[in-house]
Amino acid sequence: MPSMADLTVADAARALRDGKVTATALAEDAIARQEKFGKTIGSYMQFLPAEARRAAKAADAAFAAGADLGPLQGIPVSVKDLFAMEGLPIYAGSAKELPEKFRAEGPLVRRLRQQLAVIVGRTHTSEFAYGEYGYGTNSQHHTPRNPWDPVHVRPPGGSSSGAATSLCEGTALVGIGSDTTGSVREPACLTGNVGLKITHGRWSLDGIVPCSPTLDTPGPLARTVGDCGLAFAGLDPSCDGKALGRAMASSDVAGLRIGVAEDHYWDDSTPSVAEGVKRALDELARAGARLIPMKLPEARKAQTVFDDGDPCTVELYAFLSSELPSWIETLRPSLKTKVLAGGKMAAADYYRRWHLARSMTKAFEPRWAEVDVFAMPTISITPPTVEELKKKPDPNESRNTSMVNLLRLCAVSMPVGLDVAGMPIGLQLAAPTMGEERLLAIAAACERVLGTSRQRLGVPPMCR
Amino acid sequence: MPSMADLTVADAARALRDGKVTATALAEDAIARQEKFGKTIGSYMQFLPAEARRAAKAADAAFAAGADLGPLQGIPVSVKDLFAMEGLPIYAGSAKELPEKFRAEGPLVRRLRQQLAVIVGRTHTSEFAYGEYGYGTNSQHHTPRNPWDPVHVRPPGGSSSGAATSLCEGTALVGIGSDTTGSVREPACLTGNVGLKITHGRWSLDGIVPCSPTLDTPGPLARTVGDCGLAFAGLDPSCDGKALGRAMASSDVAGLRIGVAEDHYWDDSTPSVAEGVKRALDELARAGARLIPMKLPEARKAQTVFDDGDPCTVELYAFLSSELPSWIETLRPSLKTKVLAGGKMAAADYYRRWHLARSMTKAFEPRWAEVDVFAMPTISITPPTVEELKKKPDPNESRNTSMVNLLRLCAVSMPVGLDVAGMPIGLQLAAPTMGEERLLAIAAACERVLGTSRQRLGVPPMCR
Repeated sequence: MPSMADLTVADAARALRDGKVTATALAEDAIARQEKFGKTIGSYMQFLPAEARRAAKAADAAFAAGADLGPLQGIPVSVKDLFAMEGLPIYAGSAKELPEKFRAEGPLVRRLRQQLAVIVGRTHTSEFAYGEYGYGTNSQHHTPRNPWDPVHVRPPGGSSSGAATSLCEGTALVGIGSDTTGSVREPACLTGNVGLKITHGRWSLDGIVPCSPTLDTPGPLARTVGDCGLAFAGLDPSCDGKALGRAMASSDVAGLRIGVAEDHYWDDSTPSVAEGVKRALDELARAGARLIPMKLPEARKAQTVFDDGDPCTVELYAFLSSELPSWIETLRPSLKTKVLAGGKMAAADYYRRWHLARSMTKAFEPRWAEVDVFAMPTISITPPTVEELKKKPDPNESRNTSMVNLLRLCAVSMPVGLDVAGMPIGLQLAAPTMGEERLLAIAAACERVLGTSRQRLGVPPMCR
Repeated sequence: MPSMADLTVADAARALRDGKVTATALAEDAIARQEKFGKTIGSYMQFLPAEARRAAKAADAAFAAGADLGPLQGIPVSVKDLFAMEGLPIYAGSAKELPEKFRAEGPLVRRLRQQLAVIVGRTHTSEFAYGEYGYGTNSQHHTPRNPWDPVHVRPPGGSSSGAATSLCEGTALVGIGSDTTGSVREPACLTGNVGLKITHGRWSLDGIVPCSPTLDTPGPLARTVGDCGLAFAGLDPSCDGKALGRAMASSDVAGLRIGVAEDHYWDDSTPSVAEGVKRALDELARAGARLIPMKLPEARKAQTVFDDGDPCTVELYAFLSSELPSWIETLRPSLKTKVLAGGKMAAADYYRRWHLARSMTKAFEPRWAEVDVFAMPTISITPPTVEELKKKPDPNESRNTSMVNLLRLCAVSMPVGLDVAGMPIGLQLAAPTMGEERLLAIAAACERVLGTSRQRLGVPPMCR
């Protein structure tokens, strides 16, 4: 029987439709795998076996009745503990359960339910998706362990930490996360998965606890580019899934213009991480892609919005002080300091920062005449251990991802190898605003050249 | 020969194409009229006869060569002193000439030039389009006089004050203005003209001195709805001018659902103003429109963003302190106080205000299932005299217009009568985001029932 250990969404969707597997069997497998990995990795804030079994039964009944409600029907999906679900407590990674009104489901969870996806549980995230020491750490609850290092306790990246590890565990085939400055792509990168950061505003933020709504985007993580494409097709209200499928199946790297990001985005890299990304780019070049050195001055300028103060913390402060005032006191000290600093920023300073970012977004647009996508490491170092992070957070953690949010682009992170520490290396490909379909087709072509995560990286040691 | 005194853009465009008038003759007429009205009304910060003659000559040469570059070819147009024009000083209504970089033309002025419109001059505005005592007053330079009152010195409304009076003078057939909380519609209302506030973001703000870019919108004023439609078609990059023309010519009020705004937007009205608007609505009802009482709680909630602090002043402060720091000292005292208060607002408070407005924008959307447009007086009182305003600014000046900006709608103000003081009364019709074409078609149908300004209100006494 097909196992959640190595199924893709595409395989599962086919097997479900061909009667070779049932949604119930997949859900039972996911539940068994959660029993196996819950203690060692621990992706879930709340695992939901009863709900998963119910949803799987409904999906099977629909399949039996010949109903095909979308690519995620019957597929085990994990959902970040930031997305409201009717009748279920929500914490947003924080110390306390949020008030009942935060259970009101938004359109993304509704879309999952409407196509009878099997939501298996709510995955861990950093506190209010902002976090403590970075890299998905959460000492209030639990930091899912990065299953690629059985020796050192390394974090999986954040803030969609559990979303990423749920894919490694095989407790889910799609992880729903969210990305404000990199929170989908970073954990995808560090766990050997694929993460898609969509264009801001493309999907509603309703029913998602806000971090910084000016940048927040929901987005899927999956094991392959193809799976990310199916998740995107299943979740996006305007995507033509069949056309996307055809585009992803027929795309080619020949003639593809890949901008290779300037040195800044490779600075302070772990050598084997930078080499791994460069090797992948060289392989794409040998397959016919054109590598074009690319300066990114607008991105660097936009990123100065974070100098001496972070406008995202203003929005988190505004949310907390309006909606959950007593929560501020209970924040972990490192987050509390940042949030209180956000509360002290002057409006004109805040405005000027976003205004600068918007100007740079606009100034960047003509660059797309030169390249189809641009590339860089998603994260350019071996992730520190949790203990190292507690001593010294990494100031460059979101350097390569946040520029995509600030320039209002879309991007994928896809796995391209392992570094000397045996940790996954991610290649980030960024594409124009609202260019998700084209980006997914390009990434699919790249994946055909480079191989999928399983083909190229293998199985995480702790999940073997 | 057709005279600028009573031509419409539609008439002029036809006469230009039929060879019954030349752009040069229209420009000469505009220049003569400026000589006549410059001292009594005074719409212009800079009148540009040489430039107008040159542009008119080019337009005539193009007509002679059979070139038709758009509906504004050869049409005298005035441009608010907020829009950059290459080689010309710009003040933005302030005490000092702005640095040279503010002369870089944006797409709107470029579009005027590309279709060989005849820019006759730059019209007065309030200081930084924000102003002093409201209603378009500007004691640094000049407040164009409202030509409807030959006895009392009344302001024309602002901040696009000169844009509006240029239409009364007949020195221009289209006035280019801008609207942050009502600055196109208010002067249109008080001078018996039509003003169109477009959807925020539909037209670029490049080349326009910012007031509050979160709300700023450029927009045309003209004497008739038809003329506003031609100006819109000539300026909008995506509008199908022919389709719009057909829609405007064939529209009908029969079956039109007009939401009549709740009492709040009629409170503290001058009785004859409220009666004038109600009379017009009754005439529309007799012609077949359905009047539907409409509550606007989302609009009222959105307008609380201005309580105890105005987020627009944050943006003006941020602009001035970054770009023109020494200007702050030279601001008129009333504006200076507001701008400095903007500089003191906390970022979280600023964010919360706009966040509330955005929530209300979204909450308002379902209301469009009930009505096609909603209606209220544009300004609900007889405009105070300039002396009265100096003593006591009107706190309700932008009450009925700013809600349209906050809800990110589009709207027109169209003249529907004169009040007991003989001052024009404006009916504001508001329509959904990006609904300009449909709004213009509806307003054209209403104008066919009610008559144009000339038919219904006559000629301003000071322009006879």
